[in-house]
Amino acid sequence: MSKHTDVNTLGEFGLIKHLTKDVKQYQDSTVLGIGDDAAVIDIGNGKCHVVTSDMMVESIHFDLVYTPLKHLGYKAVVTNLSDIYAMNATPTQITVSLAISSKYSVEALDELYDGIKTACKMYNVDLIGGDMTSSPKGMIISVTAIGEAKQEDIVRRSGAQVDDIICVTGDLGAAYVGLQLLEREKQLYLNQPDIQPELENATYLIERQLKPEACKATIEYFAQHDLKPTSMIDISDGLASELFHISKASNVGMIVEEIKVPIHDDTQMMALKFNVDPITCALNGGEDYELLFTVKESDLDKVRFMPNVYIIGDVVEAANSVKLFSSGGKMHPMKAQGWNHFKD
Amino acid sequence: MSKHTDVNTLGEFGLIKHLTKDVKQYQDSTVLGIGDDAAVIDIGNGKCHVVTSDMMVESIHFDLVYTPLKHLGYKAVVTNLSDIYAMNATPTQITVSLAISSKYSVEALDELYDGIKTACKMYNVDLIGGDMTSSPKGMIISVTAIGEAKQEDIVRRSGAQVDDIICVTGDLGAAYVGLQLLEREKQLYLNQPDIQPELENATYLIERQLKPEACKATIEYFAQHDLKPTSMIDISDGLASELFHISKASNVGMIVEEIKVPIHDDTQMMALKFNVDPITCALNGGEDYELLFTVKESDLDKVRFMPNVYIIGDVVEAANSVKLFSSGGKMHPMKAQGWNHFKD
Repeated sequence: MSKHTDVNTLGEFGLIKHLTKDVKQYQDSTVLGIGDDAAVIDIGNGKCHVVTSDMMVESIHFDLVYTPLKHLGYKAVVTNLSDIYAMNATPTQITVSLAISSKYSVEALDELYDGIKTACKMYNVDLIGGDMTSSPKGMIISVTAIGEAKQEDIVRRSGAQVDDIICVTGDLGAAYVGLQLLEREKQLYLNQPDIQPELENATYLIERQLKPEACKATIEYFAQHDLKPTSMIDISDGLASELFHISKASNVGMIVEEIKVPIHDDTQMMALKFNVDPITCALNGGEDYELLFTVKESDLDKVRFMPNVYIIGDVVEAANSVKLFSSGGKMHPMKAQGWNHFKD
Repeated sequence: MSKHTDVNTLGEFGLIKHLTKDVKQYQDSTVLGIGDDAAVIDIGNGKCHVVTSDMMVESIHFDLVYTPLKHLGYKAVVTNLSDIYAMNATPTQITVSLAISSKYSVEALDELYDGIKTACKMYNVDLIGGDMTSSPKGMIISVTAIGEAKQEDIVRRSGAQVDDIICVTGDLGAAYVGLQLLEREKQLYLNQPDIQPELENATYLIERQLKPEACKATIEYFAQHDLKPTSMIDISDGLASELFHISKASNVGMIVEEIKVPIHDDTQMMALKFNVDPITCALNGGEDYELLFTVKESDLDKVRFMPNVYIIGDVVEAANSVKLFSSGGKMHPMKAQGWNHFKD
């Protein structure tokens, strides 16, 4: 009998690395392939196209018990645009492929597409194609986003240097706590369908989970203020996981100060209600879609006055790996505990 | 209670049309959006990128009982490249997003990616990105292909004119008959697992189903011989369905002569064994991935000497719609009976 190695043994990133390890390049126009937030294609005149694809699967990435279809359509687009912004590029077009089981009505799809079109309008992006097919079970949405940038403006994960400053564009952990809240209410509802959901004072958290936004303003600010990060990545799997990505790609260490990691008051309070340390939500929660980036020390003044940008740590020698300098004054090695779908 | 309109009432094309009817355009670079084999994006200097996305879902588009994973990976890529060639463009990059249930082993995925990489090599295309996630059931493969062309070389569905000549690049119906054959053997196997499959003399048909090729040579021939079709589409849903697409987009009628529709001897014989009229397989079978195109009458000599190209009919006034001039000398209105996944 042939060998059967469980995909769980490798995890998402390990599996991608294994399957694409001997991928060859045939086209001169391919500037950057697999391994960053998006691929880069030379289109001449010093410009490039930036391309990323993401897939969302029902009951893995979303639960329609508490996810309005309009929000889902919006989020499916925004999460892809976030990858384009993470390259310091401007998204311009998307394709959307959809597989649906026969339980979905035309009206339900109208809602979904309403969200897709709203995201296109908010971010000035054109829906230019895709596919529509049936699925034996549930819904699958696959989005490809294309963006444009000058080649010299592209920011990769691999450019961080020792002594650079580590920044994030907004508070972290809220989307994760919002998800826990929605899951709790779902369980309560399933056990007792006549109960009213206790979602007061949770608007912020739930919105961060159901209707994230991509960092359009950040990229525009960079352009306006002639500021180019040395490395960048969007925070989809949690701060810790993204720090490791930059650390590996740039061959540097990263030290983050716990006290400087921005966590919203609502996130703090709700995390404590759930008996979870808020910093754990920020480090490993995921789905924040903020940008994590590094800048040269000489650009400190420029980032200091950026709206909603937090300086959270320093790039150090690779030997230090990725560490958290805790509020208690101790240095803790971090673990990349991002999502591992295959461990579900 | 809110309205529930069954998606089956609209069909695939009707549903896409309905959902995207009010899609707006925000980017000047978008030359052509939804509604052709691929979208067209201006990249400057008279050149453009051509973009298409397709999704393949297990038990809808493929059955792993008789589809080797290597072939599946190859086909998933090739069917997308076919859409790029149908725009008279050259494919250059792809992204592949994959959702898999935990039943798949690393070795199974190695096979799948072997097929993907082989297709990339055969067609000089770079695998530049994608996504990898889990699925609650089965496998979903979503591919986006990007191609390049001079803007002036792009061929749309909408350019056919009265008196143009209708051509196809190869024989039709074989992929459909191959599928029927595989389905029959699957049923026999399920009923009597110790039986040997009767697949001798069926190599051609099965290969057309499991390992289709895209028309790279055709596009190269066009370029070398300074020949530009007036309209073009790839044959994925059957000749009849594609004729209707060109007819609608170009506002013309199409008359095809039954006797001129190329059908392979093996297709003929096997269709008759299945008690199906071979012309029905050619018209409505689908998955041939040949190109259907029209050229000006003045280009007749150029296509006459093209290898593997068959002249099958004439473009006529729109009022004639799409018709088949039968071997018996009668004119029959055609029906677009392409795949309708939602009617399964």
